[in-house]
Amino acid sequence: MRNTNELEILLVEDDPNDVELTLCAFGKSNLSNRIHVARDGAEALEFIFCEGPHAGRKMEDGPKVVLLDLKLPKLDGLEVLRRIKGDPLTRMIPVVALTSSPEDRDVVESYNLGVNSYIVKPVNFERVVEAVEQLALYWRLMNEPPKLKG
Amino acid sequence: MRNTNELEILLVEDDPNDVELTLCAFGKSNLSNRIHVARDGAEALEFIFCEGPHAGRKMEDGPKVVLLDLKLPKLDGLEVLRRIKGDPLTRMIPVVALTSSPEDRDVVESYNLGVNSYIVKPVNFERVVEAVEQLALYWRLMNEPPKLKG
Repeated sequence: MRNTNELEILLVEDDPNDVELTLCAFGKSNLSNRIHVARDGAEALEFIFCEGPHAGRKMEDGPKVVLLDLKLPKLDGLEVLRRIKGDPLTRMIPVVALTSSPEDRDVVESYNLGVNSYIVKPVNFERVVEAVEQLALYWRLMNEPPKLKG
Repeated sequence: MRNTNELEILLVEDDPNDVELTLCAFGKSNLSNRIHVARDGAEALEFIFCEGPHAGRKMEDGPKVVLLDLKLPKLDGLEVLRRIKGDPLTRMIPVVALTSSPEDRDVVESYNLGVNSYIVKPVNFERVVEAVEQLALYWRLMNEPPKLKG
């Protein structure tokens, strides 16, 4: 039976406006309890590897996708990506990189590290909401997530 | 300047009905000249690596995404995926695996090999068209493709 409390999305984002916008877009689809927000790279890794305050969490409970901002405090997004994709336990988790300004170097480095998809955030407010809805539709409902072991 | 003749999608599919359906879905968006169809795994690799009849093609001309059926004649989809993701020249190309029946083993193996996304084809005709449109929207317009070198 499908676990209806399953976590679907880990949003790794330090900009409060972007967090607010994303939660607002998800709120429209009653999904806000299926998202966990990490505000920096270190917090994201603790969550993903079920460590620290998340030691009780089970890896097989998700997330189905990590939406990863690349500019983050403490540990930057590329390093978070490197750790996720470098560990056999977590490398199957789909990771979508999000950036405000696409730099060729970041795009190449992300794909080389194994990012699943790379999205440039739209500038316009309504476009951001649309993009988040589209992202959620694709990765929650269309993509078949990997079965992770605990 | 954007190359308007750029190839956007490589569809690797042996089932004529599925090819027809996909081209029909793309036809609605006037995209049919931006797709190349390979009917088996060997043909797909020749196209991707610019070999054989595709020796004149340049790798930097795309595709933006490979839609890869996993059950293929000559060379199966997992082997095609292994070759694409095992070569530094091509590993950045986004590959979406498509299957009719999801088998856990194929899902795990695909993610381990580095597939970007894994989609189970809907059974219903209209749903297939919707899914193809959704896939094309996501990988053509939302995802930032890697810049490949020739």
